[in-house]
Amino acid sequence: MAAVLRGSRNLWGRSLKHVDFTLVSSRSMASKTQVGFIGLGNMGKPMAKNLLKHGYPVIATDVFPESCKELQELGAQIVDNPAEVADQADRIVTMLPSSPNVIEVYTGPNGILKKVKKGSLLIDSSTIDPAVSKEMAVASEKMGAVFMDAPVSGGVGAASSGKLTFMVGGVETEFTAAQELLTCMGANVVYCGAVGTGQAAKICNNMLLAIGMIGTSETMNLGIRLGLDPKLLAKILNMSSGRCWSSDTYNPVPGVMDGVPSGNNYQGGFGTQLMAKDLGLAQATATNTKTPVPLGSLAHQIYRMMCARGYAGKDFSSVFQFLQEDENKEEGQ
Amino acid sequence: MAAVLRGSRNLWGRSLKHVDFTLVSSRSMASKTQVGFIGLGNMGKPMAKNLLKHGYPVIATDVFPESCKELQELGAQIVDNPAEVADQADRIVTMLPSSPNVIEVYTGPNGILKKVKKGSLLIDSSTIDPAVSKEMAVASEKMGAVFMDAPVSGGVGAASSGKLTFMVGGVETEFTAAQELLTCMGANVVYCGAVGTGQAAKICNNMLLAIGMIGTSETMNLGIRLGLDPKLLAKILNMSSGRCWSSDTYNPVPGVMDGVPSGNNYQGGFGTQLMAKDLGLAQATATNTKTPVPLGSLAHQIYRMMCARGYAGKDFSSVFQFLQEDENKEEGQ
Amino acid sequence: MAAVLRGSRNLWGRSLKHVDFTLVSSRSMASKTQVGFIGLGNMGKPMAKNLLKHGYPVIATDVFPESCKELQELGAQIVDNPAEVADQADRIVTMLPSSPNVIEVYTGPNGILKKVKKGSLLIDSSTIDPAVSKEMAVASEKMGAVFMDAPVSGGVGAASSGKLTFMVGGVETEFTAAQELLTCMGANVVYCGAVGTGQAAKICNNMLLAIGMIGTSETMNLGIRLGLDPKLLAKILNMSSGRCWSSDTYNPVPGVMDGVPSGNNYQGGFGTQLMAKDLGLAQATATNTKTPVPLGSLAHQIYRMMCARGYAGKDFSSVFQFLQEDENKEEGQ
Amino acid sequence: MAAVLRGSRNLWGRSLKHVDFTLVSSRSMASKTQVGFIGLGNMGKPMAKNLLKHGYPVIATDVFPESCKELQELGAQIVDNPAEVADQADRIVTMLPSSPNVIEVYTGPNGILKKVKKGSLLIDSSTIDPAVSKEMAVASEKMGAVFMDAPVSGGVGAASSGKLTFMVGGVETEFTAAQELLTCMGANVVYCGAVGTGQAAKICNNMLLAIGMIGTSETMNLGIRLGLDPKLLAKILNMSSGRCWSSDTYNPVPGVMDGVPSGNNYQGGFGTQLMAKDLGLAQATATNTKTPVPLGSLAHQIYRMMCARGYAGKDFSSVFQFLQEDENKEEGQ
Repeated sequence: MAAVLRGSRNLWGRSLKHVDFTLVSSRSMASKTQVGFIGLGNMGKPMAKNLLKHGYPVIATDVFPESCKELQELGAQIVDNPAEVADQADRIVTMLPSSPNVIEVYTGPNGILKKVKKGSLLIDSSTIDPAVSKEMAVASEKMGAVFMDAPVSGGVGAASSGKLTFMVGGVETEFTAAQELLTCMGANVVYCGAVGTGQAAKICNNMLLAIGMIGTSETMNLGIRLGLDPKLLAKILNMSSGRCWSSDTYNPVPGVMDGVPSGNNYQGGFGTQLMAKDLGLAQATATNTKTPVPLGSLAHQIYRMMCARGYAGKDFSSVFQFLQEDENKEEGQ
Repeated sequence: MAAVLRGSRNLWGRSLKHVDFTLVSSRSMASKTQVGFIGLGNMGKPMAKNLLKHGYPVIATDVFPESCKELQELGAQIVDNPAEVADQADRIVTMLPSSPNVIEVYTGPNGILKKVKKGSLLIDSSTIDPAVSKEMAVASEKMGAVFMDAPVSGGVGAASSGKLTFMVGGVETEFTAAQELLTCMGANVVYCGAVGTGQAAKICNNMLLAIGMIGTSETMNLGIRLGLDPKLLAKILNMSSGRCWSSDTYNPVPGVMDGVPSGNNYQGGFGTQLMAKDLGLAQATATNTKTPVPLGSLAHQIYRMMCARGYAGKDFSSVFQFLQEDENKEEGQ
Repeated sequence: MAAVLRGSRNLWGRSLKHVDFTLVSSRSMASKTQVGFIGLGNMGKPMAKNLLKHGYPVIATDVFPESCKELQELGAQIVDNPAEVADQADRIVTMLPSSPNVIEVYTGPNGILKKVKKGSLLIDSSTIDPAVSKEMAVASEKMGAVFMDAPVSGGVGAASSGKLTFMVGGVETEFTAAQELLTCMGANVVYCGAVGTGQAAKICNNMLLAIGMIGTSETMNLGIRLGLDPKLLAKILNMSSGRCWSSDTYNPVPGVMDGVPSGNNYQGGFGTQLMAKDLGLAQATATNTKTPVPLGSLAHQIYRMMCARGYAGKDFSSVFQFLQEDENKEEGQ
Repeated sequence: MAAVLRGSRNLWGRSLKHVDFTLVSSRSMASKTQVGFIGLGNMGKPMAKNLLKHGYPVIATDVFPESCKELQELGAQIVDNPAEVADQADRIVTMLPSSPNVIEVYTGPNGILKKVKKGSLLIDSSTIDPAVSKEMAVASEKMGAVFMDAPVSGGVGAASSGKLTFMVGGVETEFTAAQELLTCMGANVVYCGAVGTGQAAKICNNMLLAIGMIGTSETMNLGIRLGLDPKLLAKILNMSSGRCWSSDTYNPVPGVMDGVPSGNNYQGGFGTQLMAKDLGLAQATATNTKTPVPLGSLAHQIYRMMCARGYAGKDFSSVFQFLQEDENKEEGQ
């Protein structure tokens, strides 16, 4: 997956206030002490590298040993499992694919909490169900550690260039300590409230994003069929109450804007499959809180149908293409 | 219905380029000649008044004689039916509730086209199916007249203050002539393309607006239930890719913004019933052009369900209230 | 399109009471007098043939002269336009593709109503908006004629074999006269109420059918992925409250039933495009009556999306295939 | 909640084959040995009573001590927690509200698996996520025990009268042993396949049921507005391809059928809230298996919106009432 960030076009927008790099917490002494990092995938690896670049000794682990090699060559210490990371570092960042991985890495037999030191700061940047974040926070607290959820926005490119946005949930008094590390990896660090609210903010944004993108796509498609020029229609919408990020910053119609995936056959950007995953989280969260989300739910289904029809790897703005008539296509033959 | 326009918050946005008042067409001579006006309802009456204010003699008619009185007292000439208007004026503006009315007023037994003069300019500001606009254009052309569709955005308040936005479809060479009249009644006049595209632009915008409003409402509701502060959530969305007009300019959650209907128990603004009507047009247009509009279609259904549950007269942002849980309510008892 | 009727599996079910052939109306004398027939397409031609087979002299017309040839060879008299049909026959059946055609054939310059005889019986078997049926009834009544809507169920096969089902709306006292003709072409003739209710019944049935088919398809797909055997799942549903015509009579999963399109790569049956058309009518009717139809509306959108993705000509049960994951497919490349 | 079963109208249908009471497993000796029962709520209590009636000694527990009293008076032995039940009985039935309860009762600190005997048969009749059923099966197997999922259909009334339907998933060779107990509590016991498929079958049926019920409600509402008599429309649908359980056995329109909740102001029957819960499970399962369920998903949202508007306690067929226009209602005032 290529970067979502393309110049000023960022899935998380233009102007999240940049949090100044200010204090060091009591936890990290005068000098830069070791930081643990668990989960060295497409996102985690460049994030860990940025910690190294900022001078932090890194102690890391991953289920796939080969993922560790590159980081080891850059000077990171590699250990066997999360418990061993926790045995040595009192600040740990985790970046994992889904809720079950997070549960395993924190509470499993070789999990962080088996050997976590009292007072440790545990920052989970995975995108998961906020209910799981809360469970991890409770479990961590029992061991005397502090857990914060800090999911990121921005893709692999933003991770490499240190331009991620972090949405942070957790005890407010620990936010400054988290900032110290997160600003090494991201351009924006936003405090959202109690633990789980980082996840909540990300899920909410992405649900509304998906709705706006599908809505923009159907609207543009309808307008074009009614004889409107796509560029003119986009201009009218963007001056009017139909305006949204998907219409004015990431327009899904080829030729309307430059530098967005619609101009590049929907390559790069934010994959349909990843959007479907985030919408699944939104749906699960809505179900658990008995919240009606009719459009979010239908958006989820549409991205799911797209995955079933071969769009999994394309940018999520390819829903425009999915909805367009393709008279010559005969499927299933 | 109160005005949609509230300070700079306008359903049609902030900065549609103001079209300069420039030429007079060959049709209107040096001095200001009579302009016909048909349809003196809540919108039509203040529009006709603005023509009078700008010094145009107005000759008008309406099916309800009482609607004509006020205008007559202001100096307008009142005649019995559209044909008689067309008999005297070569520029006519029509403002009618729906497609059948437009068909009747143009092609009925006492319709405009019975007595229209060759070269007349007929401007229809009703919001109707673009297919009907096209039919009227064809019928007008047969009689040697020019038809343009010019639906408005902005409510009664904007009509009174002459701040409407007009979306204009029709032959481009006639646009300047239309502008001359429309700028007396509106702040913005946008040329959209061939006949019908004015309607298309309005329908498209309002469909995307409805999607964005419902999407924002479910997202805000979900976020609040997940523990996020509504103002902070709105701020995060507005800095991010979830941003849309409904989140940053007309937020549906009471207390997040000032000067919008959500702050006033959803009074004023743009009624749910009117939005449902526009979505019905969007749906009909999409059906006729075989265009899939899944979210627009569901938005239509949701506004329709709201009408069935007592929300017809509230601002369309009251969908937030509709989706919120109301544990104490027991309906149908 | 192949026949919908396949043995006892009929889109319109098993046991619509067969209406006895009883009386002759006052209109048709002792002997069989001429019957007019307008619209000789895929459906109309075999219907007209069945009238001939039953000994009725037929006088017919169609916009495509070549469509008339075959019928002429079988003994029908061919004339130039609907007005001429009406000039000679006092019982006329029309079978046309859509509302505008019906309006033209009845009220156009060479339409039936230009020369219709007082007391004529006009039966429209087209599937159109019930509002148009009502308009035609009013227009016919002004000329002293009786109009009835009698849309059919069953495809070309049923039309050929005289096994159509007719849903009839109109004045009840004229129903017997209509039956006399309709029983020549169909196995079931159901009286539904005032004019327009024939259309209403057909539209309602097909909307619920579409909902049931998509619902059955998603349910079967989900169950299969959860490890249930498709035949067993169908059996359980059919014994339980999930049971519907699509699960027990026309199951969309290949291999569950014999003799249905799902067993034949979704060839034959009732095309997705035709279902989309009927759902468009249902949607338009619901919009006009301000009736919320959330699932019907989404069903419409799904069939519309299927048309856009190459399923237009497949049986409407192919929605099962559309929803199934197809990992190897890469569209748009 | 009142009974779903009303005469022959049963959410799970008429004719699930009654499984003969045949063999005793090797586990239960010649005489009837103790059966454990955990979860004595509205459903569990009458189920446990039926085991007592059939002569099985019962050893039971519940988190609420007061729930145990009645059973104790009938001769059951009450113990403190699930582990103690497992310590004494080698056949245990559990009936709990949701997945987390099941996890706790099986794998918690005082859970069944702490003291389960090798070879024990554990039958869970809760309605939960099939993925959790599978986890419990794996955990049980590690301890040498057999786990089966056997969710029920039918409400409190069916539980009291021993007329429940059980959908059973698990190792086929153990099915006979499970039958022995389940036939004491239910009229139908259906084997569905591997562990989890009992849950899958129930979830699938209820999802399709919800779709059919909403679809029937919108269709009936639309037809009535188009002038059709409700009873005639129901009759036409039931003879045709629109037919489903909700139209022919549990019609949601007051006055169409006798003996169903629609005839009793939607009292009794299967509550909207319970349907929303089951649809939440269906949605979660679909999300986890990446299965598109567009109508199921929208049905979930509609039942969720109904809960938010005061319909939680009414029968799920009250969606007809929810969709009907109620012009006089002004909410939120």
